[in-house]
Amino acid sequence: MKLLEEMIVKYGKVYPNDVLKIDSFLNHQIDVNLFFEIGKEFKEIFKDCKPTKILTIEASGIAIAFVTATFFDNCPVVFAKKDGALNMFHDTYHADETSYTRGSKKYVEVSREYLCKDDNVLIIDDFLANGEALNCLLDICRQAKCNVLGCGIVACKTYQPGLERIKKQGYRVECLAKIKSMNDGIEFE
Amino acid sequence: MKLLEEMIVKYGKVYPNDVLKIDSFLNHQIDVNLFFEIGKEFKEIFKDCKPTKILTIEASGIAIAFVTATFFDNCPVVFAKKDGALNMFHDTYHADETSYTRGSKKYVEVSREYLCKDDNVLIIDDFLANGEALNCLLDICRQAKCNVLGCGIVACKTYQPGLERIKKQGYRVECLAKIKSMNDGIEFE
Repeated sequence: MKLLEEMIVKYGKVYPNDVLKIDSFLNHQIDVNLFFEIGKEFKEIFKDCKPTKILTIEASGIAIAFVTATFFDNCPVVFAKKDGALNMFHDTYHADETSYTRGSKKYVEVSREYLCKDDNVLIIDDFLANGEALNCLLDICRQAKCNVLGCGIVACKTYQPGLERIKKQGYRVECLAKIKSMNDGIEFE
Repeated sequence: MKLLEEMIVKYGKVYPNDVLKIDSFLNHQIDVNLFFEIGKEFKEIFKDCKPTKILTIEASGIAIAFVTATFFDNCPVVFAKKDGALNMFHDTYHADETSYTRGSKKYVEVSREYLCKDDNVLIIDDFLANGEALNCLLDICRQAKCNVLGCGIVACKTYQPGLERIKKQGYRVECLAKIKSMNDGIEFE
């Protein structure tokens, strides 16, 4: 997606330890116009899909999942919660996420009320590097025995193992911006 | 807001310790159509305001802030992050939030890049009870010396002290559903 790549190059900042900061428009401040373009692009890519749920994970995925849902007949969005954010009155599917950036472990869960075996699920998230968050969501979908239509990711570091690992499991993964290197400026596939 | 009150009565569940679960449509699963009605209502209430930023706090506030922004010329949304979710390359405004529901303390921050003294800020959040989250956002706005136009809250427990405390500070706070009691079914003001 050309506009997204342009914005990553223009506003993205690369820091030591392979950190890419694109939070001026994606995951701290939100560029609402860009998000509608992102949603439209996901609709184009997944135009043959009829999701009954769009699944994401808090926090940065929520607005992207929401805007994408507006292109799929306003289908419901479910966002996985982290670290006990659900109150105790839930029976949940759950998985553990180890964050590469923070080195910490998070407990990820979705209430069984909002995901079931009849659901056709489109998974949406902001970022894919090692794939820990996406693996959690896929694990939760397997627990729910629902049908995963595919995974739509805004930005992906293809030189890290997440994308290939998840594709090898047989899932469809589509990334709007595929970063192949950040060694000498940001380069895309 | 009548539709919202009806949905709270129909789908809300009251549990011991004054816990109201409305996550089938508001803060775990998202009813996209309802959210557009919520955004439209905030636009009607704050129609004389011209925000340069809509500010909220992760995670449940994000989609509400996003949909509200679509009614204010797609103005940028900034969501405060919790517990070190920002990477280390930020200079931030920050405050501490003590959660009533969870009894835990959270470190809340916003990058100084995305909020400044020239900003006219509309604060949006899902829930107001003791007002801890909203107080954090207002504290951050004072640090940024920006102009707070008002606070739009989806559901508020008016029998808890948050709403009055914040109004007494001189802020405009507008709640779409004002819950005055949950002792014998959910009652609204």
